[in-house]
Amino acid sequence: MATPQPEIQFNGLKESVPGLPARYYFDPAHHALELKKIWQRHWVYVGRSNEMLAPRSFKSVAIGDQKILLVRDDSGTLRAFHNTCRHRGALLCTQESGTLRGGAITCPYHAWTYSLDGTLLRTTSKSVARGFDVSDYPLYPVNLKVWRGFIFACLAERPPEFTAGFDVPLSRLDSWPLEDLRIGHAFTTVMRCNWKIFWENYNECLHCPVVHPSLSQLVPIFGRALMEERDDPQWREHAADDDPKYRGGLRRGAGTWSSDGALVGKPFAGLSEADRLAAHVYVTGLPSMFIVCHPDYVRLVRLMPLGPESTEMRVEFLFSPETLADPGFDVSKVVDFSGAVMREDAEVCELNQAGLRAAPHESGVLMPEEYVVRQFHDWLRAEIGD
Amino acid sequence: MATPQPEIQFNGLKESVPGLPARYYFDPAHHALELKKIWQRHWVYVGRSNEMLAPRSFKSVAIGDQKILLVRDDSGTLRAFHNTCRHRGALLCTQESGTLRGGAITCPYHAWTYSLDGTLLRTTSKSVARGFDVSDYPLYPVNLKVWRGFIFACLAERPPEFTAGFDVPLSRLDSWPLEDLRIGHAFTTVMRCNWKIFWENYNECLHCPVVHPSLSQLVPIFGRALMEERDDPQWREHAADDDPKYRGGLRRGAGTWSSDGALVGKPFAGLSEADRLAAHVYVTGLPSMFIVCHPDYVRLVRLMPLGPESTEMRVEFLFSPETLADPGFDVSKVVDFSGAVMREDAEVCELNQAGLRAAPHESGVLMPEEYVVRQFHDWLRAEIGD
Amino acid sequence: MATPQPEIQFNGLKESVPGLPARYYFDPAHHALELKKIWQRHWVYVGRSNEMLAPRSFKSVAIGDQKILLVRDDSGTLRAFHNTCRHRGALLCTQESGTLRGGAITCPYHAWTYSLDGTLLRTTSKSVARGFDVSDYPLYPVNLKVWRGFIFACLAERPPEFTAGFDVPLSRLDSWPLEDLRIGHAFTTVMRCNWKIFWENYNECLHCPVVHPSLSQLVPIFGRALMEERDDPQWREHAADDDPKYRGGLRRGAGTWSSDGALVGKPFAGLSEADRLAAHVYVTGLPSMFIVCHPDYVRLVRLMPLGPESTEMRVEFLFSPETLADPGFDVSKVVDFSGAVMREDAEVCELNQAGLRAAPHESGVLMPEEYVVRQFHDWLRAEIGD
Repeated sequence: MATPQPEIQFNGLKESVPGLPARYYFDPAHHALELKKIWQRHWVYVGRSNEMLAPRSFKSVAIGDQKILLVRDDSGTLRAFHNTCRHRGALLCTQESGTLRGGAITCPYHAWTYSLDGTLLRTTSKSVARGFDVSDYPLYPVNLKVWRGFIFACLAERPPEFTAGFDVPLSRLDSWPLEDLRIGHAFTTVMRCNWKIFWENYNECLHCPVVHPSLSQLVPIFGRALMEERDDPQWREHAADDDPKYRGGLRRGAGTWSSDGALVGKPFAGLSEADRLAAHVYVTGLPSMFIVCHPDYVRLVRLMPLGPESTEMRVEFLFSPETLADPGFDVSKVVDFSGAVMREDAEVCELNQAGLRAAPHESGVLMPEEYVVRQFHDWLRAEIGD
Repeated sequence: MATPQPEIQFNGLKESVPGLPARYYFDPAHHALELKKIWQRHWVYVGRSNEMLAPRSFKSVAIGDQKILLVRDDSGTLRAFHNTCRHRGALLCTQESGTLRGGAITCPYHAWTYSLDGTLLRTTSKSVARGFDVSDYPLYPVNLKVWRGFIFACLAERPPEFTAGFDVPLSRLDSWPLEDLRIGHAFTTVMRCNWKIFWENYNECLHCPVVHPSLSQLVPIFGRALMEERDDPQWREHAADDDPKYRGGLRRGAGTWSSDGALVGKPFAGLSEADRLAAHVYVTGLPSMFIVCHPDYVRLVRLMPLGPESTEMRVEFLFSPETLADPGFDVSKVVDFSGAVMREDAEVCELNQAGLRAAPHESGVLMPEEYVVRQFHDWLRAEIGD
Repeated sequence: MATPQPEIQFNGLKESVPGLPARYYFDPAHHALELKKIWQRHWVYVGRSNEMLAPRSFKSVAIGDQKILLVRDDSGTLRAFHNTCRHRGALLCTQESGTLRGGAITCPYHAWTYSLDGTLLRTTSKSVARGFDVSDYPLYPVNLKVWRGFIFACLAERPPEFTAGFDVPLSRLDSWPLEDLRIGHAFTTVMRCNWKIFWENYNECLHCPVVHPSLSQLVPIFGRALMEERDDPQWREHAADDDPKYRGGLRRGAGTWSSDGALVGKPFAGLSEADRLAAHVYVTGLPSMFIVCHPDYVRLVRLMPLGPESTEMRVEFLFSPETLADPGFDVSKVVDFSGAVMREDAEVCELNQAGLRAAPHESGVLMPEEYVVRQFHDWLRAEIGD
């Protein structure tokens, strides 16, 4: 009878495997393929529902070169459309956000008017040509899904199952009052790298001790170049040790991801002891976003591809209304800390991009700790049909 | 015996028709095709003859990526050449305009010298290689036509009939002393749109009430979204009414296109009552220009494609020498008015371009009032062999 | 018995021949072909050995889009590698030059560490995957050759014979103490032209009287549009005349290429009378560089293609340590003179590029004096397999 091998529960890769072909990171034709096969097929995070609560409020966003208009109607229903008039294709709305006057969407070119459900209500022509029927010209619809206050859009005609797009069951975040949270701070930056470089960086902590000195102190297991306990082939030797450097979580005495490790607000009421200790619970929704839930705030990072070697990153910090209302609340303690971590990541992502064009470099090679990078590569290959 | 139907003389489209494919407005390969099939085949307006009256005067212009040199010889003959030396292809002339010293064109690289009719007069070499004959190396000629003071160039070897390029007989402008007019003001701007977007905008007035508030007051029929009387399906109902809102022309009391509607100079002497009342007589020469003749001045608009989504627009205001010499003449009254109209058009053209990349948008649809847009589309399809 | 014909020893072209196709100078696809067939096959000058004499010193350079790292090890051996980590392709070194701490090359992303001979010494992973062996992941090597203090790199796996890349035997420069010279001044500029335009300009003096007034005075034969005595079909008539306008060399009384013609340092000790009189001895190593040896200093010009219509030029002025140490030494006398000549050439190269897109211009034509331009074209055609 065989004894279970310790390796069985070791997370790491056991076989040496190559990375993606180098040209996937800079070839414009390959980039166009990924836009089509991935970015125009999946649910993409486009904003918070409570940024546009008022009836007739709207928001303009872009997914790559596709411009989208989000509109809330008088009954509170939120919809998404291509930001394009059906007449001659003019942009319907040039403002980033606001409230629609008159409760309708009117094209600024020839005043075609659409209801907030996208129906073409009227043109401005004095006659009707044979074969023309307003009912044939509603706004081009875009699929939309609001999940716990987060709005996602999907450009595909037949969108995939929403929950299938996340790496863990969304119930993992049930204890956090996500619906109620508000953006207390946000910033946007452009990285000179392919969007996949960011996800590869996100999916391993082998770089943490080299790249993230402060984070490696706050989260000691990151300082050991590991994401979690079983990334260590010798994890069983320390299975009984509750030192965070083996177990994961924050250094002793720290409560959240902030510059001094102290909480910046009251912990969310519904959290279990385990949730509080975890200090960061990640949910990833490829290709566009991840959420990290901390005991007292939530961070969301969204990517948007701008070109083969250019990617926009937006970071939103979400807090409870109570925390935001607290006169002693100091947002800079989390923004400074996470801002530094994100800047470190962005810089090293650009460094990775910068080396990829060497003629003999067909692809890199993944190390045992890069098992989630491997999962990401497998996902990508399946998505593009490679 | 059948009575003529009122619709028979209605200008508008009776069948619903789609516009051009959306990719025609941004696809670089399609743009290259249009440069070759249209811009390098047709007569293109390049300047006024009286800008370069002096013997040996020259002017450099560009049609897309083709650089042209216009030269007047000592006998007054105007010619056009590619601005390229036959030796090793250097640019012959870097200045925009001026006078050629020595009555010859000398290349600034190796001093090959050409007469003003393009003949290679001499090289600077000390010997002649077998097979080399200066008579084989004249400047590359470009076809040139001066029509009533307007210079046109055509890059095709066999240019089309000059008069065939205009939408109405050129005799329509016989009453205006075009030869004598001078440029009193000009401006150039770059629009972030395809060149065809401009012509579509130019070819309909359905946008006028939405986009041009001042123009819609000055020309009341434009305020009704119509270009002329028979664009209205109910035009027969008002056939006896001489109100300009039905008949066309300026609002009562106004004399020309200016900020207060007042004339800025004496009306041209030869105009008929009908010409004066018309207030604007258009002649269009695709793909590059249109002329509008007003009672007291003439406006010319020239397009030049800079890229699939970038077009240069130049506007020239032409006046009689008498008007220009009048101390009371105030050019700002027409420049401000027309400048505002052109800015409004440029802005809405950019808006149109901005919405065209929506993935489901294969093409727009034309309304009855857009019958000249349809003619433009038919012309374009024929030109590119679609 | 036949008398030798004077023409036999005339250098010039006797048959009229066309230049290269115009599209070779701006077509991106053709440019990519030349990068592959020429720039990635030949020895390219990348720097002076004595810029990085110290053990562990390094220098980063780029040949087109290929980033190279030059490293000197503790024993003084210089090597070149692609500046790319074998792990996931990150750029190893972002600094232009410096000294490697720890005597190893450590990737700034995951700290893979390589010895200075390129061997991968260690990764930072806690386990080793099956099939992974550090010996399979040395840095990608780049061929390197140091010739008399000049470092050349070759991206080809099998580089051509080093000496075969020069137009004259390298022994021609034996009298100059090239190893000992130091860069006393250098400048870099970007020309808006194809790299081949520069070489064509370099390979003839037909342009000299038109383009280089000062140089034409200093070197009288250049003022006659000739590079050397036998470029003149009538050279035999002046065969006995030692006037520099026939014989070549500097105007009487001048000693070197400087603003007043005077030497800026002591002449190099080993020069023969002929070397001193020659005043400039050229050695050309296509595609990247030429050296000109003057009696008291050496000038090196290096090209690097940045795009089809963009080329970087770097000029280095090399002097003996004694000259550099002389308190009376005034570098501006040579920099001003040669700087002006190079600016004149760069300007006229840009002019040449600017005229090449004329649609009827398939190619230029070469004059008798352009026999070395013809040799350059023949070399280029052979290299690209045309």
